[in-house]
Amino acid sequence: MRLRHKPWADDYMDENSQIVVRDPFNLKDKWNDVFNKEQPLHLEIGSGKGQFIAGMGKQHPEVNFIGLERVKSVIVGALKKVLDAETENVRLINEDAQDLRDLFATSEVDHIYLNFSDPWPKSRHEKRRLTFHTFLDQYKDVLKREGAVTFKTDNRGLFEYSLSSLSQYGMVLEDISLDLHALDDPLNVQTEYEEKFSAKGQPIYRCTARFKE
Amino acid sequence: MRLRHKPWADDYMDENSQIVVRDPFNLKDKWNDVFNKEQPLHLEIGSGKGQFIAGMGKQHPEVNFIGLERVKSVIVGALKKVLDAETENVRLINEDAQDLRDLFATSEVDHIYLNFSDPWPKSRHEKRRLTFHTFLDQYKDVLKREGAVTFKTDNRGLFEYSLSSLSQYGMVLEDISLDLHALDDPLNVQTEYEEKFSAKGQPIYRCTARFKE
Repeated sequence: MRLRHKPWADDYMDENSQIVVRDPFNLKDKWNDVFNKEQPLHLEIGSGKGQFIAGMGKQHPEVNFIGLERVKSVIVGALKKVLDAETENVRLINEDAQDLRDLFATSEVDHIYLNFSDPWPKSRHEKRRLTFHTFLDQYKDVLKREGAVTFKTDNRGLFEYSLSSLSQYGMVLEDISLDLHALDDPLNVQTEYEEKFSAKGQPIYRCTARFKE
Repeated sequence: MRLRHKPWADDYMDENSQIVVRDPFNLKDKWNDVFNKEQPLHLEIGSGKGQFIAGMGKQHPEVNFIGLERVKSVIVGALKKVLDAETENVRLINEDAQDLRDLFATSEVDHIYLNFSDPWPKSRHEKRRLTFHTFLDQYKDVLKREGAVTFKTDNRGLFEYSLSSLSQYGMVLEDISLDLHALDDPLNVQTEYEEKFSAKGQPIYRCTARFKE
């Protein structure tokens, strides 16, 4: 229903189709074509208002970034941030991708980011969590062998669940932080949520995981 | 130097040699002989003043427990706790065991506990941390195939390191808690440290890890 308040959203995206890719399913195995340079492809699942993907685009010109966000009224915020950042290596997709394998070919992606994903705290919703094994199947397929998944969250339950789930899937964990902001890492690009929750003194958890070779 | 203040420690241990096993290296592959019943063998490395091992002994009469503690002036406290608990399934070892394989035969142990181990925060002391890979080699050898290692700590750095180290060794993680006391688990037996630090509001971290089959 939120869309009623943004009737201009479709127009805005159409006007900026150089950023918001309008035919993403046709680009499977051809994502390099929509970027100016052929370079590693990083994917954020659930880009929200885009602070992370726009910031990463600025910080890493040597990488092509794709932000996936299904909520139209939210992705227009991301579009604005990407335009404002004047960076040429970020594209957005406004789809509810049930299966990443419809969007990306095997080994097409170098890195996946899951930032502050919906925790789905109820057990009966476990399969909706983005670190549930059916999603890991997808990540494994679209990622290169040496690719990795990095996730950040302020949700303790989701982080505990995810460490177990990734480990039990056979992934190897690295770069674990149980209080990311205590590290004071100048290269950490914050999401909107992250800024808000860490300002409240809440710890931010982070981990990177790789599929074993 | 602390020993000077407890000249009675050796006498006290000798008087209670039914609890503090005085010839542990001779008992390799024969640990069941020192217990009244043949049942699973659980080992705590660094038992300190013994609150955990004595409490676990009470709570789990179906398990034989061994507490290893190298500091003489500390283990006498554990001895007193075990005697007070009037439990028959706990034994203590006062040795600086450089290699567990000198004390235990292959697959002799069912479970290992590491509670509030020394964090050795400096990188150059990494190899002294009880979750460093050379220790994991030992655990793997003395544990049964389905055996596991459970560790608890209040030290964030040690926990982050340990999750990575165990995962990179190929162990599978389960039962991860980033705030154990939030669970309010009535079966959680606290160590002295744990009581002290969690009373200060500090989160207690816990994880169980298994070697893959």
